Amino acid sequence: MSDRFAVVLAAGKGTRMKSKLYKVLHPVCGKAMVEHVVDALSALQVKDIVTVVGHGAQQVQDVLKGRSQFVNQNEQLGTAHAVLQTKDQLAGKKGVTLVVCGDTPLLTANTLESLFQKHDSTGAKATVLTAHTNAPEGYGRIVRNSDGIVERIVEHKDASPDERDICEINTGTYCFDNETLFELLEKVGNDNSQGEYYLPDVIELIQENGWKVAAQDAPTFSETIGINDRVALANAEHAMRERILTAHMRQGVTIIDPTSTYIGTDVTIGQDTTVYPGTSIHGATTIGEDCLIGPHTELQNAVIGNASTVKQSVMHDSQIGHNTTVGPYSHLRPGTDIGDACRVGNFVEMKKTSFGHGSKAPHLSYIGDAVIGEGVNLGCGSITVNYDGANKHQTTVEDGAFIGCNSNLVAPVTVGAGAFVAAGSTITEDVPANALSIARSRQVNKEEYNRKTK
Amino acid sequence: MSDRFAVVLAAGKGTRMKSKLYKVLHPVCGKAMVEHVVDALSALQVKDIVTVVGHGAQQVQDVLKGRSQFVNQNEQLGTAHAVLQTKDQLAGKKGVTLVVCGDTPLLTANTLESLFQKHDSTGAKATVLTAHTNAPEGYGRIVRNSDGIVERIVEHKDASPDERDICEINTGTYCFDNETLFELLEKVGNDNSQGEYYLPDVIELIQENGWKVAAQDAPTFSETIGINDRVALANAEHAMRERILTAHMRQGVTIIDPTSTYIGTDVTIGQDTTVYPGTSIHGATTIGEDCLIGPHTELQNAVIGNASTVKQSVMHDSQIGHNTTVGPYSHLRPGTDIGDACRVGNFVEMKKTSFGHGSKAPHLSYIGDAVIGEGVNLGCGSITVNYDGANKHQTTVEDGAFIGCNSNLVAPVTVGAGAFVAAGSTITEDVPANALSIARSRQVNKEEYNRKTK
Amino acid sequence: MSDRFAVVLAAGKGTRMKSKLYKVLHPVCGKAMVEHVVDALSALQVKDIVTVVGHGAQQVQDVLKGRSQFVNQNEQLGTAHAVLQTKDQLAGKKGVTLVVCGDTPLLTANTLESLFQKHDSTGAKATVLTAHTNAPEGYGRIVRNSDGIVERIVEHKDASPDERDICEINTGTYCFDNETLFELLEKVGNDNSQGEYYLPDVIELIQENGWKVAAQDAPTFSETIGINDRVALANAEHAMRERILTAHMRQGVTIIDPTSTYIGTDVTIGQDTTVYPGTSIHGATTIGEDCLIGPHTELQNAVIGNASTVKQSVMHDSQIGHNTTVGPYSHLRPGTDIGDACRVGNFVEMKKTSFGHGSKAPHLSYIGDAVIGEGVNLGCGSITVNYDGANKHQTTVEDGAFIGCNSNLVAPVTVGAGAFVAAGSTITEDVPANALSIARSRQVNKEEYNRKTK
Repeated sequence: MSDRFAVVLAAGKGTRMKSKLYKVLHPVCGKAMVEHVVDALSALQVKDIVTVVGHGAQQVQDVLKGRSQFVNQNEQLGTAHAVLQTKDQLAGKKGVTLVVCGDTPLLTANTLESLFQKHDSTGAKATVLTAHTNAPEGYGRIVRNSDGIVERIVEHKDASPDERDICEINTGTYCFDNETLFELLEKVGNDNSQGEYYLPDVIELIQENGWKVAAQDAPTFSETIGINDRVALANAEHAMRERILTAHMRQGVTIIDPTSTYIGTDVTIGQDTTVYPGTSIHGATTIGEDCLIGPHTELQNAVIGNASTVKQSVMHDSQIGHNTTVGPYSHLRPGTDIGDACRVGNFVEMKKTSFGHGSKAPHLSYIGDAVIGEGVNLGCGSITVNYDGANKHQTTVEDGAFIGCNSNLVAPVTVGAGAFVAAGSTITEDVPANALSIARSRQVNKEEYNRKTK
Repeated sequence: MSDRFAVVLAAGKGTRMKSKLYKVLHPVCGKAMVEHVVDALSALQVKDIVTVVGHGAQQVQDVLKGRSQFVNQNEQLGTAHAVLQTKDQLAGKKGVTLVVCGDTPLLTANTLESLFQKHDSTGAKATVLTAHTNAPEGYGRIVRNSDGIVERIVEHKDASPDERDICEINTGTYCFDNETLFELLEKVGNDNSQGEYYLPDVIELIQENGWKVAAQDAPTFSETIGINDRVALANAEHAMRERILTAHMRQGVTIIDPTSTYIGTDVTIGQDTTVYPGTSIHGATTIGEDCLIGPHTELQNAVIGNASTVKQSVMHDSQIGHNTTVGPYSHLRPGTDIGDACRVGNFVEMKKTSFGHGSKAPHLSYIGDAVIGEGVNLGCGSITVNYDGANKHQTTVEDGAFIGCNSNLVAPVTVGAGAFVAAGSTITEDVPANALSIARSRQVNKEEYNRKTK
Repeated sequence: MSDRFAVVLAAGKGTRMKSKLYKVLHPVCGKAMVEHVVDALSALQVKDIVTVVGHGAQQVQDVLKGRSQFVNQNEQLGTAHAVLQTKDQLAGKKGVTLVVCGDTPLLTANTLESLFQKHDSTGAKATVLTAHTNAPEGYGRIVRNSDGIVERIVEHKDASPDERDICEINTGTYCFDNETLFELLEKVGNDNSQGEYYLPDVIELIQENGWKVAAQDAPTFSETIGINDRVALANAEHAMRERILTAHMRQGVTIIDPTSTYIGTDVTIGQDTTVYPGTSIHGATTIGEDCLIGPHTELQNAVIGNASTVKQSVMHDSQIGHNTTVGPYSHLRPGTDIGDACRVGNFVEMKKTSFGHGSKAPHLSYIGDAVIGEGVNLGCGSITVNYDGANKHQTTVEDGAFIGCNSNLVAPVTVGAGAFVAAGSTITEDVPANALSIARSRQVNKEEYNRKTK
């Protein structure tokens, strides 16, 4: 195998996105377009990835940090000009250089691998990734001779009527013999209506030299599309989603409605887990087997054990164990660590809390900055008062304690193991193990009260 | 330009809707079908719009009040009979009359404008809006001669096999020379199997007089469809939705999943705002730039500033400022006015409340009939007790006050600026500025309590 | 009409499902695949239904209990072998036997009825259910002679190029003359590459005997598909959903977005009810007329009267009356019975509670194990303290009582008719009718409090 290099073109402005966000940074399934491209390249033993940045250069570099080298294209003078900026990194190296746009997030590693392989096997100086479409309008057409050899690539505007009927188009992704590429890039001119230096001119120069140009047909046109506006972005999101979901289904995950389920590229889900509609699962989320997730659940960087349920809830940067149920309508904020066989019911919020095995917070509670032991019962409406207006403090509830309804645990405070806090109490001092703690007034009934009525 | 008039046919019963609601009042993307038609007409400098009402006349008039004149068709004797009811309003006027059905909500102003223009430019006495479809079954076919001139319109049942192969159909929308129309309407008979007076007979009479009939082809068949049952209604809703969403995307709004996003016709959304799935936005809602809206959020007549977030929440007839976050799981009811840089967290309800800049209600609160100053912190579970069983009263919390968890503010009551209400307190009297207010019992711990256990 | 019998083939493992759950038990729209098949058969006056079970035999029998007989196929030696296991139940009976796979949940009773009728009317010994598809790859093709008579069924691998172009395929569903079937099953061999006994060989034997084989074309290919993996399962779910939703729409239910609405097979919905997106309705749910259901609502075994609203809520095994509104964000758990003209607002949970006409629980309450009278007002944050750590106890609130905000009703306890519980009270003893009950501390204001600040 030749050495492999890649140039990612990511300097264009993307005017049609109508966005302050740089085009290639628009996310598809939660990940920037250009990251998808670099993900695909990273799977292909590419020695050097060089990303050409321009508009929004700093943000692109932040996103790809450590995964690519960068060169700046200060003026956008065309694709050939862009590739030429990588001269310091790539010129003179022996091998094959793939040139790909940063706005083609759907291109798979498989397709790019097939492009490299076609290039290697044909001895061509350049290999074009092509695709077939019923709507070739606007694309360069691939003119092949009767042996199927690529004769030339003709721009739409220069194409004859016969050539316009050709359905095989140039996707704008290429492999080049690296030395040839940089030799010819210097010779590309800008004598055209836009005054730009065009990369396809390198192909023409190769052919003028009598060298071979090959073509590799992509499995589908849709995977090769560049994203230029938000309608295309939504379509790409849809296609990527379908691809991700199909992979999970093939691995034994039930997706009730793939058209209303949103799963990121880096999510792991165990067999026999069911995902209900309206659920989005993103980040580095791992879900075990036999879980029920959703409907209408949002998971971000969540770790979920086996046989657990999370329904109609939001969970970020948190984890739960096995056989635990969460929801409906709960909110687990970052730093929540819930054990096995727990129950977190409705209208419960947790953050920065460890919650021991078998404990329950069934209703209307807020538990923040807390260490809750095992087998604890937090009554309805019980609240950790973790904030005094200036600082956050910790609440500790030890194993087997029972916290009554509508009670406040004013942190810092500890409720000892097996203790019982009466409903309606505001607890400001530690409660010893096995004690009853009560802080409320005696009930007084005043008969025949003349209450206000409508 | 000739004077323009329009007749909207809206008297039919719509039996196949199986509804107590009159057919043309069924909403599409939150707006009655017939309103969509009148919206399109209103964009076209039409002098008189006359709506022919019958079944449910009063409700239709209520919906279109001030935007149309009305005539009653007491007996439904056919489309020609319906148009004839507008005689008092329109007969004798010089100009062009567009006749359109009230159940065609997808027809655009552009299409109707092109129909008017075709009519004006051809000197025809009538111009038919036609459309092409692969399933012309049941529709009148447009028979053109070899010059493309409309020779006749033939009803499906009268069409020859060759004519049945014609894919250009009559959509039932027409422009007429107004004087010709009313002259010929009087001559239309009802000698047919249904005993009805049919408007296409006017076309035939025009042709019998040797006058010209023109045709304008609609851009798509789907936009011309009349809605007759709820399956068609759902399809129309889908098509309208797609049209609205595409327009927003073209303007720089990211819609993660257009198939699960529901936006009304009168909504404004700023650039670089992202709308997550399962979100419906209706009424006169205005959303600023750089916002995150959804998932699973319902907005109705909401005004939202820039860079604000509303997720998994419901918001009606309310507004929030810039850089404010709401949700997940909050409910902003009518009359809520939230400032900039506020945080309304989970399980919080507000109504008739002004909530000053930088204030927070992070968890499990109900704030109703309240004036909350700036920089206020409402602790978890704090509640405005606004109702005494007879009347609603106001709660005032001044700038910088801190309200402890699970506390009640029994209205009418004022908590002064910078005051601190201790957790678990029920506040029935005003709290002076900078005071501490506390209303709770001392905590008592009883050791070795013999608590009930399972 | 001949006597009718049916054999359901439900013994295969379903390896490609990658599941611990037996293939035919995977649910489609909330009901196991094989149950859908038995539902269709049950509509057809079939005398004996015999299900052939193997893998997961016990669970399949549990699901179909009382609706089918069962035979065990201990070794899976092919479809002919499977049918032969029903010998004790069916051999020797005069009549027609339908053989159908348990993984074809989309087959309708109508289609199976048409298969029976074709069989009866043609005097064939076997009738094959066929279907037309543009992708016949892998299926047995139906070879008909110029008179349309089925000449033979040729397996894909044995088909000539011409035969492979045939688009009519064998769906694997058959009617047989029962006596012929069992006579020939004994003669089927396993001399093939898989060493299996194949049911189509019976067709071949029938033709070798010179008997007639007929074919009935299914209305669509998609309805005949067997589900082999979870991608197919999702597709089946989609098709079934569309079928169910279309039926409701035709009956006068508005479904805003059929692609995001999930309704089970056994749900009843009244005319002029609107179902908003993201709603799933399953089990034996009955909804009245003029209701608004959803968005994002989950109903399971719910009974809802007329003109009621349930939005953004979860409701299981519960009922509500007429003109009642629930939600957003409420959770009605099993055993909740809510009357007419009630209001259950946001962040409210109920379970095992009867809730009288005209009562309200507008915000942030948990009502469990309770009997609430008519015209009761439960203030925000009021809670039934139904659990003492060991047992659940009942709360009773009589007609017209008013329960203040953030108060606890510590069960067992009764609040008498017309009584008033002050906000912030923890009620441990009964409150007499018309009494005021209060259990809270006096408010103390400490001026110029030196509170902690950031």
